[in-house]
Amino acid sequence: MRVHGQEYRTIFVADDGATVAVIDQTRLPFAFELRHLRSAEQAADAIRDMVVRGAPLIGVTAAYGVALGLRADPSDAGLARAVQLLGATRPTAVNLRWALARMQSVLAEEPVDARVARAYAEAARIADEDVAACAAIGRHGCDLLARLSAAREGRPVRVLTHCNAGWLACVDWGTALAPVYAAQAAGIPVHVYVDETRPRNQGAALTAFELGAHGIPHTVIADNAGGHLMQHGQVDVCVVGSDRTTAAGDVANKIGTYLKALAARDNGVPFYAALPSSTIDWTIDNGVSDVPIEERAAREVTHVRGRADDGRLLEVEVVAPGSPVANPAFDVTPARLVTGIITERGVAPASREGLAALYPDRTDRP
Amino acid sequence: MRVHGQEYRTIFVADDGATVAVIDQTRLPFAFELRHLRSAEQAADAIRDMVVRGAPLIGVTAAYGVALGLRADPSDAGLARAVQLLGATRPTAVNLRWALARMQSVLAEEPVDARVARAYAEAARIADEDVAACAAIGRHGCDLLARLSAAREGRPVRVLTHCNAGWLACVDWGTALAPVYAAQAAGIPVHVYVDETRPRNQGAALTAFELGAHGIPHTVIADNAGGHLMQHGQVDVCVVGSDRTTAAGDVANKIGTYLKALAARDNGVPFYAALPSSTIDWTIDNGVSDVPIEERAAREVTHVRGRADDGRLLEVEVVAPGSPVANPAFDVTPARLVTGIITERGVAPASREGLAALYPDRTDRP
Repeated sequence: MRVHGQEYRTIFVADDGATVAVIDQTRLPFAFELRHLRSAEQAADAIRDMVVRGAPLIGVTAAYGVALGLRADPSDAGLARAVQLLGATRPTAVNLRWALARMQSVLAEEPVDARVARAYAEAARIADEDVAACAAIGRHGCDLLARLSAAREGRPVRVLTHCNAGWLACVDWGTALAPVYAAQAAGIPVHVYVDETRPRNQGAALTAFELGAHGIPHTVIADNAGGHLMQHGQVDVCVVGSDRTTAAGDVANKIGTYLKALAARDNGVPFYAALPSSTIDWTIDNGVSDVPIEERAAREVTHVRGRADDGRLLEVEVVAPGSPVANPAFDVTPARLVTGIITERGVAPASREGLAALYPDRTDRP
Repeated sequence: MRVHGQEYRTIFVADDGATVAVIDQTRLPFAFELRHLRSAEQAADAIRDMVVRGAPLIGVTAAYGVALGLRADPSDAGLARAVQLLGATRPTAVNLRWALARMQSVLAEEPVDARVARAYAEAARIADEDVAACAAIGRHGCDLLARLSAAREGRPVRVLTHCNAGWLACVDWGTALAPVYAAQAAGIPVHVYVDETRPRNQGAALTAFELGAHGIPHTVIADNAGGHLMQHGQVDVCVVGSDRTTAAGDVANKIGTYLKALAARDNGVPFYAALPSSTIDWTIDNGVSDVPIEERAAREVTHVRGRADDGRLLEVEVVAPGSPVANPAFDVTPARLVTGIITERGVAPASREGLAALYPDRTDRP
């Protein structure tokens, strides 16, 4: 997508054909800087330090990290070392393990002297597949926005989103925001309400940045404000991403998503989750009982990172000293509150039957 | 209530018999400092700048502000000027207008040379009435918590609250937190989940501070987390305050309250608003359409105030530069989501009939 008038992906191979460039997301929204990765170690650091984040982007970075590792040592031992190193960065990220397993199985069969080229090609393929999936999600979601736009008679379709499920979390386009970008490209006027998304502020920092950089009209709101807006008819549709979706259509996503789904239901606002099918966990139905919820560090709640008047990025303490904190990172929105699930194959009802009809090839997995 | 082992009210007349002392709530939780008000202008500034906040405390501060104004000019014109100045500070709080109307009607009948003394006496009476009302709310709410405690068989009753409706919002005891303090005094174990309450963080800063200072077990959470906790059976009851309650039981309170009421309803958690009857606006029924919602400055969302590593209180910018912001300060929880309204006269169903039965002397007001 566009930043300062130039088209970017979040990750790409530099002109030397070897170095991997990523956008340093720890500097956003206050500085837009590229970071150049030249070894598997640097790729692992970028994932661990959240220079890159978002499940799809983590997977692609790990894949390129394997390619970088093989440049130093293309042997079986070198391959195993790179996979081990990269796999240890974010142990809970499912795309990370999936991408590394794919790289390993493809490369193990390759002669040693052909591995580097094959690794770059396979990483590029994973990246391109992610872009294609996001673009398809964008097309299907754009159809939904087009119908809402017709009802709005030319006024902007007002979309509320939570956290960052935009192109910064992927390689390009994004998941929840892909329909927004597609709509704008199709000449459909849109306006996005962006939840701040405490405690890590991905909405205020990343979603607002990427929408602003691409020229999408938007308004940042506190996480508390969405219900009020919906009560007053100011939101036409909610679209969020998902970190894991059950076979029955329960949506695990950033903490607070469930509250917006409740407000949407109470006010007759359609609520969609947009996700690639790789995010669907076909092995479980009940998200509330069966999706493990990561409890993250108290410091994410007690301290807020931002830019001081003098331009420095620093953290300030915002909670009464000594007060205990709980910090669950995700919640589960039950399928009954989800109007539909926008996938790369189309929009499915949030139910076992709905998802199974779209993915007959997947639902019989254990 | 207690701070550093000493009993305080949030507002009191200093030893000189004229200056009005308030706790500077913009400095909490990192510093506990008194601010001395010596004119109606300083009282108005204190309200507007949220040195004092919370509907009951705003009303008492306005009443003392009239007394301060009359010290400078006790004429009818001086009285009118003070009332006008103070009334223009905050649009949503009904106590402000109520207290000013009471001061004006009492003082207009008083000879000019007796007005200052009468104004201090009347403001003190309003303050004492607030303390008595909060203590009564505490007793009635404590009965509710005692019943929940019996069901919990000795484990703490887990109360979720939003914003600050504790003693810092009142003169003493508080509204939503009065039952908690009363329960603790009665030996009933309680644990309070404290919503951070973006954008001004009254929960993390003020509620956590006052609970900690008074020795009440509590946990601070992001505003996004309450739905998840309720989904997992970790909350026994929600108790919030109210800035304005309609005759039909709709509750206007800090932005985000409505989202917690929705989650409470979805999970069978009882949801109470605790408020003095002075907060009830008998002239309106429909809160969503008829309560004006204050839109506050964007900077409250774009910047977060906190304590830096070096101990300085400063603001950091947290929103992508250039992104527009909306900042509605309150929302309305419809009566259908409110289990009951805890008042100084007892607990009423959230309905016109319920409130009228408790206040037969008030409901026939225009």
